Amino acid sequence: MPTPIVECVPNFSEGRRPEVMQAIVDAVRATNGVKLLDWSHDANHNRMVVTFVGAPDEVRKAAFNSAKKAVELIDLNQHTGEHPRIGAVDVIPFVPVSGVTLEECAKLSHELGKSIYQELKLPVYFYESAAVRPDRKNLADIRKGNFEGLKTEIKKPERHPDVGEAKLHPTAGAVVVGARPFLVAFNMNLQSNDLKIAKAIANRVREARGGLKNVKALGMQLADRGIVQVSMNLVNCDETPMYRVIELVRAEAKRFGVSVLETEIVGLVPLKYLVETASYYMQLEGFKFDQVLETHL
Amino acid sequence: MPTPIVECVPNFSEGRRPEVMQAIVDAVRATNGVKLLDWSHDANHNRMVVTFVGAPDEVRKAAFNSAKKAVELIDLNQHTGEHPRIGAVDVIPFVPVSGVTLEECAKLSHELGKSIYQELKLPVYFYESAAVRPDRKNLADIRKGNFEGLKTEIKKPERHPDVGEAKLHPTAGAVVVGARPFLVAFNMNLQSNDLKIAKAIANRVREARGGLKNVKALGMQLADRGIVQVSMNLVNCDETPMYRVIELVRAEAKRFGVSVLETEIVGLVPLKYLVETASYYMQLEGFKFDQVLETHL
Repeated sequence: MPTPIVECVPNFSEGRRPEVMQAIVDAVRATNGVKLLDWSHDANHNRMVVTFVGAPDEVRKAAFNSAKKAVELIDLNQHTGEHPRIGAVDVIPFVPVSGVTLEECAKLSHELGKSIYQELKLPVYFYESAAVRPDRKNLADIRKGNFEGLKTEIKKPERHPDVGEAKLHPTAGAVVVGARPFLVAFNMNLQSNDLKIAKAIANRVREARGGLKNVKALGMQLADRGIVQVSMNLVNCDETPMYRVIELVRAEAKRFGVSVLETEIVGLVPLKYLVETASYYMQLEGFKFDQVLETHL
Repeated sequence: MPTPIVECVPNFSEGRRPEVMQAIVDAVRATNGVKLLDWSHDANHNRMVVTFVGAPDEVRKAAFNSAKKAVELIDLNQHTGEHPRIGAVDVIPFVPVSGVTLEECAKLSHELGKSIYQELKLPVYFYESAAVRPDRKNLADIRKGNFEGLKTEIKKPERHPDVGEAKLHPTAGAVVVGARPFLVAFNMNLQSNDLKIAKAIANRVREARGGLKNVKALGMQLADRGIVQVSMNLVNCDETPMYRVIELVRAEAKRFGVSVLETEIVGLVPLKYLVETASYYMQLEGFKFDQVLETHL
């Protein structure tokens, strides 16, 4: 079994004050055993996303430390921005990268939720794989009404938090904590400039239209290159592996007499998904993850 | 660029005395910054192979420390065994794993060779990619005559060492140091029980018979499974990538109406070769090694 590695991608309701963003990022950096991979912010959304990885317990600690800093420095009563949010630290997703299951990440969410309520007095909701109520799988349902609306809505039994009292923190609101699979942004470019074809293929492969589970897809024009693209989010490559998506797009493209020009992974991808893709095409049997030399380092 | 990682696989002329083998392995283990991956020995060959990895300088130090221990504890005048050898520490190959070129590994060989002669008084030969004379690329040519024969042969100009005097170390002989690509042991099992077909395919794909460069192949029977296998050593997957081998075997198998049942990687494989294989079959463009999440840890 490879070393357990979890990714955490918390979203904070601050995208304008550099000193506040810096303090939150520093809280992650200062936590032993975690590696900061990225942070980005958007002033219109007034929001920041931080990405870090490490062993499960260390990642949980870093998430707590960053949440604590956000609670100290962000007052949602002063916050404006286009993005839906209910808290200073708005969403904290844990993502299994290797040697860890989604269920273990859900457990990590529950542990973090408990300590966030106990020490920071924030009410906590659990979502996606960490949801403890079926109507809370979907983040948008939990965030309905935003901070302003939830102030009173939280008193209704169906909006009570999963941990804590039915009362928002006066300045920091509430937080949604959860676990979800790694999201792979994957594009397939076609030997065609016909947007209709890209849209038709996207509609055939995406889950919402009877295609593959865990696949979101759109047809796009790449005007500067004179080609079209099937642009996809693969939200669970453990359940629906990349090769299945590739082969289905190739098969659907065939009926239009179009072939795939090239594909593209945007951003990061966990090693396990590439190993699985290689294994499929190579017909590799009995391959163990720890046969990859680098997993021993 | 990924973190520079080099593998070293020194061979020692001791496969019988546990305390000597242990002392050599411990010399590797005690070197900071290297990771011992494996060690194995054969009493008939009276020989041990140790595998470790790490950053280039640390790996060079560990190789030196293990060589020093072997020179102290092994007397080739007392050594018997079936395997050809000229030294207590017989061969030291450096292998690029990631972020390092073969040329850099050759340079590492030359540095190690110099310090082995200066500090241990062993004459040194360089082979494969570290060879400084074209007639020394091949290990077997350097080892001709073994320790016993080389005692006098070394005085001939064509057998002079690349570093040091033309005289064997009285107990430890000489050492061959070099650089070579990672060797991948790769098998492809066929939907057939006809050994002739496996042999015919092996002959068509191997370099020696007009097939692919850097491929050694044999046809084998897997009697217990009722199938046959094309068993291969891929000696340079940077130059001749795995997908090319797979596709050529598939193509050659077709003429016999046979298909590939499954493939198998024996032992370790560097991540870069799997990423390249996945990239080919996915038609992945512009993918950078550091998009693999784990390379950041």
